Amino acid sequence: MSLPQRLGVVVTDIARADAATVDALAEHGVATVHEAMGRVGLAGPGLTPIQQGVRVAGTAVTVLSWPGDNLMIHAAIEQCQAGDILVVATTSPSTDGAFGDLFGTALKARGVRALVTATGVRDTQDLRDMGFPVWSNGVHSQGTVKATAGSVNVPVAVNGMLVHPGDVVIADDDGVVCVPRGAAASALAAAEARVAKEDADRLAYGSGSELSLDRKGLRALLSELGVRYTTQAEFEGRHG
Amino acid sequence: MSLPQRLGVVVTDIARADAATVDALAEHGVATVHEAMGRVGLAGPGLTPIQQGVRVAGTAVTVLSWPGDNLMIHAAIEQCQAGDILVVATTSPSTDGAFGDLFGTALKARGVRALVTATGVRDTQDLRDMGFPVWSNGVHSQGTVKATAGSVNVPVAVNGMLVHPGDVVIADDDGVVCVPRGAAASALAAAEARVAKEDADRLAYGSGSELSLDRKGLRALLSELGVRYTTQAEFEGRHG
Amino acid sequence: MSLPQRLGVVVTDIARADAATVDALAEHGVATVHEAMGRVGLAGPGLTPIQQGVRVAGTAVTVLSWPGDNLMIHAAIEQCQAGDILVVATTSPSTDGAFGDLFGTALKARGVRALVTATGVRDTQDLRDMGFPVWSNGVHSQGTVKATAGSVNVPVAVNGMLVHPGDVVIADDDGVVCVPRGAAASALAAAEARVAKEDADRLAYGSGSELSLDRKGLRALLSELGVRYTTQAEFEGRHG
Amino acid sequence: MSLPQRLGVVVTDIARADAATVDALAEHGVATVHEAMGRVGLAGPGLTPIQQGVRVAGTAVTVLSWPGDNLMIHAAIEQCQAGDILVVATTSPSTDGAFGDLFGTALKARGVRALVTATGVRDTQDLRDMGFPVWSNGVHSQGTVKATAGSVNVPVAVNGMLVHPGDVVIADDDGVVCVPRGAAASALAAAEARVAKEDADRLAYGSGSELSLDRKGLRALLSELGVRYTTQAEFEGRHG
Amino acid sequence: MSLPQRLGVVVTDIARADAATVDALAEHGVATVHEAMGRVGLAGPGLTPIQQGVRVAGTAVTVLSWPGDNLMIHAAIEQCQAGDILVVATTSPSTDGAFGDLFGTALKARGVRALVTATGVRDTQDLRDMGFPVWSNGVHSQGTVKATAGSVNVPVAVNGMLVHPGDVVIADDDGVVCVPRGAAASALAAAEARVAKEDADRLAYGSGSELSLDRKGLRALLSELGVRYTTQAEFEGRHG
Amino acid sequence: MSLPQRLGVVVTDIARADAATVDALAEHGVATVHEAMGRVGLAGPGLTPIQQGVRVAGTAVTVLSWPGDNLMIHAAIEQCQAGDILVVATTSPSTDGAFGDLFGTALKARGVRALVTATGVRDTQDLRDMGFPVWSNGVHSQGTVKATAGSVNVPVAVNGMLVHPGDVVIADDDGVVCVPRGAAASALAAAEARVAKEDADRLAYGSGSELSLDRKGLRALLSELGVRYTTQAEFEGRHG
Repeated sequence: MSLPQRLGVVVTDIARADAATVDALAEHGVATVHEAMGRVGLAGPGLTPIQQGVRVAGTAVTVLSWPGDNLMIHAAIEQCQAGDILVVATTSPSTDGAFGDLFGTALKARGVRALVTATGVRDTQDLRDMGFPVWSNGVHSQGTVKATAGSVNVPVAVNGMLVHPGDVVIADDDGVVCVPRGAAASALAAAEARVAKEDADRLAYGSGSELSLDRKGLRALLSELGVRYTTQAEFEGRHG
Repeated sequence: MSLPQRLGVVVTDIARADAATVDALAEHGVATVHEAMGRVGLAGPGLTPIQQGVRVAGTAVTVLSWPGDNLMIHAAIEQCQAGDILVVATTSPSTDGAFGDLFGTALKARGVRALVTATGVRDTQDLRDMGFPVWSNGVHSQGTVKATAGSVNVPVAVNGMLVHPGDVVIADDDGVVCVPRGAAASALAAAEARVAKEDADRLAYGSGSELSLDRKGLRALLSELGVRYTTQAEFEGRHG
Repeated sequence: MSLPQRLGVVVTDIARADAATVDALAEHGVATVHEAMGRVGLAGPGLTPIQQGVRVAGTAVTVLSWPGDNLMIHAAIEQCQAGDILVVATTSPSTDGAFGDLFGTALKARGVRALVTATGVRDTQDLRDMGFPVWSNGVHSQGTVKATAGSVNVPVAVNGMLVHPGDVVIADDDGVVCVPRGAAASALAAAEARVAKEDADRLAYGSGSELSLDRKGLRALLSELGVRYTTQAEFEGRHG
Repeated sequence: MSLPQRLGVVVTDIARADAATVDALAEHGVATVHEAMGRVGLAGPGLTPIQQGVRVAGTAVTVLSWPGDNLMIHAAIEQCQAGDILVVATTSPSTDGAFGDLFGTALKARGVRALVTATGVRDTQDLRDMGFPVWSNGVHSQGTVKATAGSVNVPVAVNGMLVHPGDVVIADDDGVVCVPRGAAASALAAAEARVAKEDADRLAYGSGSELSLDRKGLRALLSELGVRYTTQAEFEGRHG
Repeated sequence: MSLPQRLGVVVTDIARADAATVDALAEHGVATVHEAMGRVGLAGPGLTPIQQGVRVAGTAVTVLSWPGDNLMIHAAIEQCQAGDILVVATTSPSTDGAFGDLFGTALKARGVRALVTATGVRDTQDLRDMGFPVWSNGVHSQGTVKATAGSVNVPVAVNGMLVHPGDVVIADDDGVVCVPRGAAASALAAAEARVAKEDADRLAYGSGSELSLDRKGLRALLSELGVRYTTQAEFEGRHG
Repeated sequence: MSLPQRLGVVVTDIARADAATVDALAEHGVATVHEAMGRVGLAGPGLTPIQQGVRVAGTAVTVLSWPGDNLMIHAAIEQCQAGDILVVATTSPSTDGAFGDLFGTALKARGVRALVTATGVRDTQDLRDMGFPVWSNGVHSQGTVKATAGSVNVPVAVNGMLVHPGDVVIADDDGVVCVPRGAAASALAAAEARVAKEDADRLAYGSGSELSLDRKGLRALLSELGVRYTTQAEFEGRHG
C-alpha cells in the first residue's frame, strides 16, 4: 500500500468511525487518548488553539492544499457532514490565512465541529464569537488564491500527525491527536481504563497520603540507576 | 526617492491621515482591510497582541531604535498626539522589553491608542489593566538602555510591513496592517464594498442554502484543473 | 568552584531563602525584580505561562532531567515543601509533556506554589482549573518515560536563567526571574526603592504634566548623540 | 486502510522498488523528481545535508523511534540491505544525536547508501570522511538511550514527507523527496521528459535568444491579470 | 511620500546607481559598508548564501511576488541588465523554491550578478557550478505556480532591509546590505576611510603591541561604568 | 554558593585547567567527551561553527555582555593568554555581530585558540582565512556599541551550557562541550576508555562480522519491551 498523497482527487464516499465511539472519546482529553493509543498519533506542539477551554472530537474530512490556495477547502465543504472535523494540510509550509469566518459559517451550518489546519487562520475573534473552534499553525490575515488543484479525502500529515479520512480527531487545549478509524473502539476502552487508574492516583496524591515514588515503585529503579541521596555538604565537597 | 532609513533624526511636522477615515477603518478588521488594500501592507505573523478582543486604528508615529535601547521611544512621546499609534522598529532583531507600563501611562495620557513594536514588551498585565493595547514580537522583561541615537518619524519596516509616518495602522486579534496615508479613502471604500459582499455570503452559507463552490462558480475551475471525483475503492485501486 | 551539573544525585538538605523575603518579593513583578537585581537572572522569552494574571514567588527545588523522561520529577516531589517552586531543566532540548495534572495534584498537596519547566506541559486546562500555575517552553501532550537517571537539587539553567536550589524564583505574565538566595534581601530593598520611584513617575506621566524626556534629562543626551529635530520637507530634501 | 503508525513492530519482508528504476532516478535531482511527481512527496525545508554535492537514491527502510532513544536503529540495521536508505522518524520532535559514525560504519558495511533522519546527528566529520551521506534536522552531540520500543518498516512522516518501507527516497543538496514504490516507473518517465524539456529551455535562455516570458507565453497572462508596464514618473505620480 | 508597495505594476525605466561606485563598493565587505552607512540598511540574519567566499555588488531590480508564485520573476528578467542584482520579496512569508538553475541561466546570460530572495531556492549545486551566487531564506525544492499578479521595480523589504529599485546591494558571507542610490558615493567614501583606520588597528593588534582597551581609550569608560577588577577570592567571598 | 552572575566585575586571576590535559582532550571529539562526561555539559544545537573540519580545546575566559554591546570583549582580551578559548554570553538573546576580524587578530596574537559566542559574528571569511575558529549563534554584520557594563570571568550559560572561568571547552563540527576544571582528568580517562571500546566496535561493524543487536545484547531488551517481528501481510492484516 503506498502513494498516499496525490493532487487532483476528491474522494466522495469515505467510511467514518462510529459516531458513538467518537462522542465517547470526546470526553477524554488529548493527553489521555494519546496515552491510550500507545503514544502515537499526536500532532507536534506548533498546532495551537485560537480559543481556550474547548474539547472536541469528530471524524476527519481531509484536505491536501497548495500553499497559499484555499480552493480545495471550498471543495471539501460539500464532502463534510455533521460530526466531522475538517483537517487541512499543505504541500509545503504556509502560514497564510487560508480560513476565515465565512468558511466557519458554512461548516457550522453543516454540523462540522472544528477545523484543524497546518495553515494560518484569520477572523479569529469572529470564529470564537460563533463558537467554531480552530487549531492552526498560526494566526495570519494573509489572503489566499483559488488557482491550483489539491485533493479532498486523501491521507495527509499535519505537524507529523498522519490522518486518513474517517479517522477520529480529538483536540483540546493540549493539542490534537488522531485515532485511526479501526482503532477507535480499542482506544476508547484503553482511555477509560486509564481514566479509572488516574482517578485513583489523583485521590492518593491529592490527599498527600502517598508519593508516586512509592505508588509506582520507583525507589528501586532510582537505586538500580545509581541515583544517590546526599547532603549539600557532601555534594559540594565531592564536586567543589 | 530613496534612503528612507537614517539614524539621528526626529521629524516634527508629519502629515497624518484624515481622522474620520481612520475611525471608519477601525470598524473593519485587519483581514478585511488587507483584502481591500489589494493584499499588501500586512505584518508577518510573529506580531501578536498581548490582549484579546481589541480592534483599533490610528495614525502612525514611527520610531527606528537601536536594539536593546529605548531612548527614541522617550523622544517619540513628545511627537505623539491623540489618535496616534506608536510604531517601533529596531535596526536589528531584538526581543528585549523596550516598553512597559510607564510608557503606556504617558502615551495614554496623550490620547495615543496603541503600540505596535518589533521589540518585546513587559508589564503586560498592567498594560491590559489600564486598557492600553499592544502588538509585539514577544513578551520579555529584559530592560533596555538609553545610549544610542535612533530616529522618530522616518519610514520603518516591522515584520515586513512598511510604515511611513502618518499612515493608518489597524490592529486586532488577526494582526496588524498598514494603509498608506494617500490610500486611506480608497481602502475604506473598498473595505465597505467587501463587507457588504461578505454579509450576503454569510447569509447564504449560514442558512446552508448555497455552497461556495456554486456561489463562486468554482466547479468549472476544479474541472479545468483536472480535479476528479472518485470513490475510495477507485482511489485505492488506482494508487494501492 | 565548578562542576555544577551532574546526573545521579538527589540533594536532600538544601538551604532556602527566607520565607518572609520571598513573600515580600512576590508582591513585585518580574520586570521590577529583574531591574532591582541589576538586570541579570532573567529567563529567555520562550518560557511562557499557561494561565494569565498570576504572580507568584517561591524557593527553588531543581530537577535536571533526561529529555523525554520524568523519573526525576517523581523523585523531586519528596524534596518539596510548602512555599517551593519546582524548576525543571533537561540535558538537551525537549518539549515533551513531562508534567501533567497528577503531578500538579501531588505538588499542590505539599504546598508547592508553581512549576517552571524547560519541557512541555499537558493537562493545561486541568492545571488552570485547580489553580496550579505553570511556566513552560510549550504545551505538548507527548508522554514521557521513566528510564534514565537525573538529579534533584543541583544547579540548573532554564532558558539561560541559572537557578541554584533554594534561590527565589518569581514568575508572572512577563516571564520568570531568579534571585540568588544570598541576594534576596538586597533585591527586595532595591525593588521597593524602584517601586517608589516608578509610582512618582507614573503620577507625572499619567497627569501629562511632565515628559520623560524632561524628567529623565534626556534632551541633553539626544543633543550629545547628534539627534536633530527637522521638518518633513527638510528630511525629504536632504535624503530625497 | 488506516492505523499506519504503531510502536513495537519490526516488519521483516518489505517489498522494495525496482533497483534499476531507483538507480535511474538517482541521476535526476530532488527538484526534478518532485516536479515529475506532481509536486508531492517533498520533505519540509528543515531537513538538511551534512555534506555538499552528494546526490543519492535508495529504497527506504523506515524507523519509528522514541525521542532520545536509538534502540530501533540498532534493530533496523539487520533489516537493511544493499541499495537501501535508512529513514528515521520520532514520535515527538527531538534533535538529539541518535546517529553517529559507528552506525554509519555498520550501514556502509551492508551497502546502505544514506541516512535521512528527523533527529540530530553527530560525528559529522567522521561521516563525511567515510563517505556516508546524511540528511538530518540538525547536528547535535547529545547521546541517546536504549529503553523504549519503537518500530521498523512501518509508514513514517519526516518533515511532512510520508515514507512507506520500500519507497524510493532521493536526496541531494536541495533536500529529500519520496517516490512511492508503485509510482517509481512513472516518476522516472516523467523526470526524463522534464529533463529533456529543461535542456531545451536552458539552451534558449543561456544563449539569450529567448525570454521565458515569450517561450512560456506569459505576456498574455500578465495582461489578463492586469499587470501594467509604467515609467517611474508615472508610478510615483500615481502613488506619491 | 507613501504607498510604496502595490501589486500589478512593472516599472521599466528605473535609475541605477553609478556603475563605477557600485564596483568600488564591491571591494568592501557587507560589515564594512554597513558601518560606513551608519549601521542601517542591513538584512536580518536569516538571509544566507548558498555558496562560500563570494562577495558581489550590483544595482537592484526588485520583485514583489505572491508567495508560492514565480510569475513576476519571469517578468523581471526582461527588466534586468548587466551589473544588476535581482531582489525578490513576497507579500507573505514563503520558503518555496521560487528560483532554480533555469532562472540562473537566463540572468547570467544578461550579465546579472546575483540573486537575493526572501523565498527559498533550488538547484543549488547547479547554481554553484555555474557561478551564479544566491542569498535566500532557505533551500527548498518546492515548485511554484504562475497565477497571481505582483510587481517589478517597486520598493520592497527583504528580512527588514528596504530596497528601492536602482539601489546598491552588496552581499557576501556575512549577509546582505542595501545602500540607497543617492547615498552610494558618500557610503563609498566612508567605507574607504573605515578600511584605512581598520588596517592600522589590525597592524597594532596583530603585532600585539597595543590592546584595543588602550587604543580606543576604553579604560576610562569601564571605570566610569563602575566595572571593578577583582580576584577570584574576593569575587567568591563577596558573592559566595 | 549562589549569585554566579553579576555585571560590573573583571576577575583577573582565574585558575585554569591543566594544559596537558586540555591538549589531550582536544584529540577527542565533542561527542566522545560529552559521553565521557556522563552526558552533561553540552551546548544546545544552535551553536554552530563558521568553518568545517576544525577541532579545538582550550581553557575558558568568560564574558557576560549586554546585548548589542561588545565593550566587555575589549576588556576580556587583556585577561586572555595562550591556550584559552573566549566564551561570550549575553544577558538577553542577541544575534548582533559583536565579534569580527579585528578581535580575531588581537586574540590570535595572544595565542587564544577560538571563540564560542552566544552572539552573532561577522567578517567570517576573514576569520576563516586567518585560521581563527568560531562557534556562534549566527552570522550577522550588525555592529555593536560600547556603552554598558558587563563582566569578565564570571560563570555564564551559553545555549544551556554552563561555563566557569578556567573550565575546558572543546569544540568541533558537532558543537561545543564544557568540562569543569576539576573534572578534566577524569573526563580524559573516560574519553580514552570510550575510544578504545569504540575502536573495537568499529572493527566489528565495519567488517560486517557482528551486529550491534548482538554485540550489545539488545535482542533480549527488544523482546522484553514486547517488540514483535512480523511480515508485511501480518502487519497489514492486523492493522488494516
